[in-house]
Amino acid sequence: MSPKRPLILVTNDDGISSKGILSLYEAVKEFGDIVIIAPNSAQSGMGHAITINEPLRLHISNIFGDTPAYGCTGTPVDCVKIGVYEVLHCKPDLIVSGINHGTNISSNVLYSGTMSAAVEGAMEGIPSVGFSLCNFDSDADFTASKVVVKNVVEHILKNGIMDRTCLNVNIPNVPIGELKGIKICRQAHAFWEDRFDKREDQFGKPYYWLTGEFLGQDKLEDTDLFWIEKGHPTIVPTQFDMTAYKAIKELENWNL
Amino acid sequence: MSPKRPLILVTNDDGISSKGILSLYEAVKEFGDIVIIAPNSAQSGMGHAITINEPLRLHISNIFGDTPAYGCTGTPVDCVKIGVYEVLHCKPDLIVSGINHGTNISSNVLYSGTMSAAVEGAMEGIPSVGFSLCNFDSDADFTASKVVVKNVVEHILKNGIMDRTCLNVNIPNVPIGELKGIKICRQAHAFWEDRFDKREDQFGKPYYWLTGEFLGQDKLEDTDLFWIEKGHPTIVPTQFDMTAYKAIKELENWNL
Repeated sequence: MSPKRPLILVTNDDGISSKGILSLYEAVKEFGDIVIIAPNSAQSGMGHAITINEPLRLHISNIFGDTPAYGCTGTPVDCVKIGVYEVLHCKPDLIVSGINHGTNISSNVLYSGTMSAAVEGAMEGIPSVGFSLCNFDSDADFTASKVVVKNVVEHILKNGIMDRTCLNVNIPNVPIGELKGIKICRQAHAFWEDRFDKREDQFGKPYYWLTGEFLGQDKLEDTDLFWIEKGHPTIVPTQFDMTAYKAIKELENWNL
Repeated sequence: MSPKRPLILVTNDDGISSKGILSLYEAVKEFGDIVIIAPNSAQSGMGHAITINEPLRLHISNIFGDTPAYGCTGTPVDCVKIGVYEVLHCKPDLIVSGINHGTNISSNVLYSGTMSAAVEGAMEGIPSVGFSLCNFDSDADFTASKVVVKNVVEHILKNGIMDRTCLNVNIPNVPIGELKGIKICRQAHAFWEDRFDKREDQFGKPYYWLTGEFLGQDKLEDTDLFWIEKGHPTIVPTQFDMTAYKAIKELENWNL
């Protein structure tokens, strides 16, 4: 008897009709039975948001031929939750999220819907990984990314992932011939120096677009920021215990 | 010359007209000059979401009398960003978020808009703290909570908070006379066993409400879950480096 094929849930945050999720599907379909559950529309920057004040809807999608696929009105984390508990009625062997149109290195992991879907998977005890290409173009070239996806997924299915951990994979925007070796990294410390573009609507009332500059001064050799800028794909193992353990002793000295 | 009063930004995720933010304002106003920037409507469960595909609006609010107050169309994290960069044009001395109508212990920190506002503050290098009362009632009694807020804020203004760290304060739903000592904790490992309540709309089409049960089996004596159930307020120092450091070595052995 041949072993059961792995069940793989595919999701993303750019929406079910993006090129990135199609590329991810194409890269992973050889590894198992695929079910796709992804947001109907772009959910970039949704972080770990869930929908609790509105109901969710699921729509069957025919984009992926015979492969079961559902568009969801919710966020990426909603897609994981409704996928596991209402569509699959079981925990899949793997959740893959992406391929994101745009980088999710450093502290962007907190804003990223792509990575929040993977983190939610880890919270559920499911091996999960998010992939992001450092190119925001909706028609970006995912050829090199697919090679990285296949490599990483093959290793996850063989080795598993440590408990309560998922993987944050970022891929530089290079042609396949220039792909360098994957680096295991920590999340660089960086943040957004925000700016708001203030405009006036047709009634003269102000509105604001969030913009800004990503400032990463932490470019030590063990960071994702260092290696992605050198053209290497990076993996940051990512967990969801946000406790600042080093601060516990200091707070105890406050004698609150 | 008397020292300059601290500038304190007040925000929340339940919306600018909730009882929780009014209670927070009442508790902190003695400590400094207050500016309130909070979502117009409930943003519970928004996590670290930011608004990038739509513009934001700010509206002057008169709810707090002479104290400058703005309602924002965005998320709690948007409120911090637009507050710092467009309203204050400087970093305040303290950001306080809440008081949330409902608990934010354990891994709920990831879903929480209240705490994401505080985490965003920490990312900006601003001392920040989120407060949550373990009572979801919109007319909850915040009398005991205000005592905890005053105690914690007084200590933060005296001691500062460690770099890249904010505080997650949860307060049990008890009368003021039954308030016990504050415990410094780590985030308990717990997760939601989700369930979707499937219903049919007037056209016979299905829709889904997210519900479920919070499962916390990690109730060791150093966790927030342990102490909140014993009726103690808890503080978890919270940071935003999500790297799973222990997994780095194992991943390096994969030879990707």
